[in-house]
Amino acid sequence: MTEASDRRHMATALALAERGLGNVWPNPAVGCVLVKDGRIVGRGWTQPGGRPHAEREAILRAGEAARGSTAYVTLEPCAHQGRTPPCADAMIAVGIARTVIAAVDPDPRVNGRGIARLHAAGIAVEVGCLEAQAQALNAGFFARCCRGRPLVSLKLATSADGKIATATGESQWITGPEARAEGHRLRLRHDAILVGSGTALADDPLLTCRLPGLEARSPVRIVLDRRLRLAPSSRLARSARAFPVWLFTRRLDTPEAEALAEAGVRLFPLASEGEGAGELREVLATLAGQGITRVLVEGGAGIATAFLRERLVDRLYLFDAPLLIGADGRPAVQGLSVRRLVEARRWRRIEDRLLGPDRLGVLEPAEDEAAT
Amino acid sequence: MTEASDRRHMATALALAERGLGNVWPNPAVGCVLVKDGRIVGRGWTQPGGRPHAEREAILRAGEAARGSTAYVTLEPCAHQGRTPPCADAMIAVGIARTVIAAVDPDPRVNGRGIARLHAAGIAVEVGCLEAQAQALNAGFFARCCRGRPLVSLKLATSADGKIATATGESQWITGPEARAEGHRLRLRHDAILVGSGTALADDPLLTCRLPGLEARSPVRIVLDRRLRLAPSSRLARSARAFPVWLFTRRLDTPEAEALAEAGVRLFPLASEGEGAGELREVLATLAGQGITRVLVEGGAGIATAFLRERLVDRLYLFDAPLLIGADGRPAVQGLSVRRLVEARRWRRIEDRLLGPDRLGVLEPAEDEAAT
Repeated sequence: MTEASDRRHMATALALAERGLGNVWPNPAVGCVLVKDGRIVGRGWTQPGGRPHAEREAILRAGEAARGSTAYVTLEPCAHQGRTPPCADAMIAVGIARTVIAAVDPDPRVNGRGIARLHAAGIAVEVGCLEAQAQALNAGFFARCCRGRPLVSLKLATSADGKIATATGESQWITGPEARAEGHRLRLRHDAILVGSGTALADDPLLTCRLPGLEARSPVRIVLDRRLRLAPSSRLARSARAFPVWLFTRRLDTPEAEALAEAGVRLFPLASEGEGAGELREVLATLAGQGITRVLVEGGAGIATAFLRERLVDRLYLFDAPLLIGADGRPAVQGLSVRRLVEARRWRRIEDRLLGPDRLGVLEPAEDEAAT
Repeated sequence: MTEASDRRHMATALALAERGLGNVWPNPAVGCVLVKDGRIVGRGWTQPGGRPHAEREAILRAGEAARGSTAYVTLEPCAHQGRTPPCADAMIAVGIARTVIAAVDPDPRVNGRGIARLHAAGIAVEVGCLEAQAQALNAGFFARCCRGRPLVSLKLATSADGKIATATGESQWITGPEARAEGHRLRLRHDAILVGSGTALADDPLLTCRLPGLEARSPVRIVLDRRLRLAPSSRLARSARAFPVWLFTRRLDTPEAEALAEAGVRLFPLASEGEGAGELREVLATLAGQGITRVLVEGGAGIATAFLRERLVDRLYLFDAPLLIGADGRPAVQGLSVRRLVEARRWRRIEDRLLGPDRLGVLEPAEDEAAT
C-alpha cells in the first residue's frame, strides 16, 4: 500500500465526512472507508444528529469483508462509552487490520485514547494523513473543543461597491438566484444561523433552507434580541415548533418572553451589561455549551460589524453582484476604526467562483491573525 | 478551406491586432495574416503610431509568397490615399487571391470602399468572420468613429467593502504588487489616462507605465483641472516633455497656464459652465477630435462618480483586495442617487481572475444599457 493510495482513500473519507456538516452537531462530521485488497468494501459517515458514527456505518456496510481490512477515518475513533459502545472497540471486534487516521480527536474524552486502544489490540495505526484538510473540515468541532466557541462564518451579499441596500433600504435582490441558492446551501452546512433583532424586525425572515426537499435540514435560528422586540406573530416565532428558534435577551422575565416561549421559542439570558465583545463571546460560549459547532452570521450590518470588530469571524463569505449602488446606499460593514492600512485585518482568499452574474469569494484570517 | 480554418486564421490575426492597442491611435489596431496552401506566409499588425498598416507589414514579410494567398484582416483594408497609397491597392498589386475580413471599417473614408475596390479587382471577399470579437477589440476606434468619443474604461482598486482609502486617506497600498502590475498593463492598452486635479494634487502621481522596458509606451496623461491647480513643479508637469500631459481648464489665459505650457503641458479650454454631463462630454469630444480612441479613468472618486452618473463608462475594471476598511473609510464611488434597485445600472461580467491575493473583475454595461 503506497502513501498515494492512502491519501486517495482518505480523500474519499473526507468527501463522505463533508455530508454531515451542519447536520451532526454536537458531534464532528466524520467519514470512514474500509479497504481490502485495494477495493473499498465499506463506506460510512456520521448520520444526522451525530449517530451512528462513521466507523459503525462503514463496518455495517462491509459485513464479513471488514475483517482484515484497512480503515481510513478522518478523525480518531471514539474510546468512551456513550449511548453505544466506543467505535475503537467495534473496530477491534470485527478484526480491522490497520487504521489510518487523519486527525486526533481534541475531545478530552478521546484525545489519543482511541488510538491507544487500537494499538493495544495490535492494530497498526498511522496518524496525520491529510490532517490539515480534516482539521479544516471540522474547524467548527475543533473550535468548540479547543476554543469554547463555534466556528463563526459571516455572509455578506453586496453590490460591487460593498452596499447591502439602497438609501431607501431596498435590498431584494442585489444578488441573483444562483448566489441566493448558494446562500441556502451555506445554511445547510452550518448548525445555526444568527441574526440581530433589527434584521428580524425589518425583513421578518424565515431563515430556513429553502432548497427543494432540504427544508427539514434547516439550522437552528438564533436571534440576538437584547430588548426582546421579536413578536410572537413574526414568521420566526410562528415556525418555532417546526424549526428551532433560540433567542438571546436581557428581558427574560417578562410577559413578552413568556408569549415567545409559549410559541416554542427557546430563550437564553444575556447577562452582560453593555455591548460588544463580552456580549458576543457570552453568546458564542452558550452556543458551544449547547453543542453548536458552526454558526452562520447573516446580518444585519450592525451584527456583522460587531463580529468583525471583535475579530470573531473565522470565515467570510462575500457574495457580490455586478452593480454599483453608490455611497448613499447602506454599507455591508459599518465603521471599523481603521485609520492606517496596517491596522486593517488581513485575510486570505481560500475560494473564488462565479455564480451566474455574481461572484463568491471565501476569505479566512491570514495565518498570523487567527481569530480568537 | 473550411470555415473552422478561416476562424482559426482570423483568431491569429486578432491576437496580432491586440498588440497595437494603446499604441496606434488615431488608427485602429489591426492584424493581418497571409495564408497559402494552409501555411501562414506573412503576419502583420499596425505599427506604433498607426503606420505602417497591418496589411503592408504582412505583405512585406510574405515577399513573393503573397501572390495567390488568402489575406485575413481584422478590419476592412483602407481605400483612401493617406500618407501612403491605400492598402486595398497594395493587396491587389501583389496578387492576393482571396480576402477574409472580420469587420467593416466605420471610418467614412473607408466604410465599404475597401471591400468594393478588392471586389472590383476580382478578389473574392468574405466579411463577418469573428466580427463581434473584432468590433470588441477596436471598441475604442468604433466609439471615436460612430459616437464621437473614445471608449471610456474606469479603473477602481478597492478593499473588499469598496473603499479606496482609510478615514485618514491612506491608500498605498490596498492591492498587492500583482494587481498593481496589471494596472500598469491596463495603462499600456489605453491611449490616454485621465485623472482629476484632486488626485493630481493629493498623490503627485507620474501616471506612466512603470513595467520594465515599457515606460516609453506610456499613454497621454490627461488632467481635468477646472481651476488650474496643477503646479509646474508637479511630477506630471516636470515630465511633460518626455510623456505628453494634456490639461483641461477654464483658466487658459493666466500666468499659471503660461508656466505650465512652458513646461510642455498642452492646454485645452473647458468652455462649459457648471459641472457634470456637459463638461465630461466636451472633454471626450475634444479627445476624440485629437485621435484618442481609448481612455482610462483612474480617479479620484469624484471623477469616477461623475463618469458613472453620466453613464459614460464602457468598461469597469474592479480590482479588490481581501481586507475590510469599514464605513469610515473613503468610498470608491460617491453618491449615485440610486433609490430603487431597478434604477441601478446593470453590468455584465466579461472577465474575472485572481491576481495574487487580489481579484480583477471586468464589467461592461448590460446589453440593453449601452453607454452613450
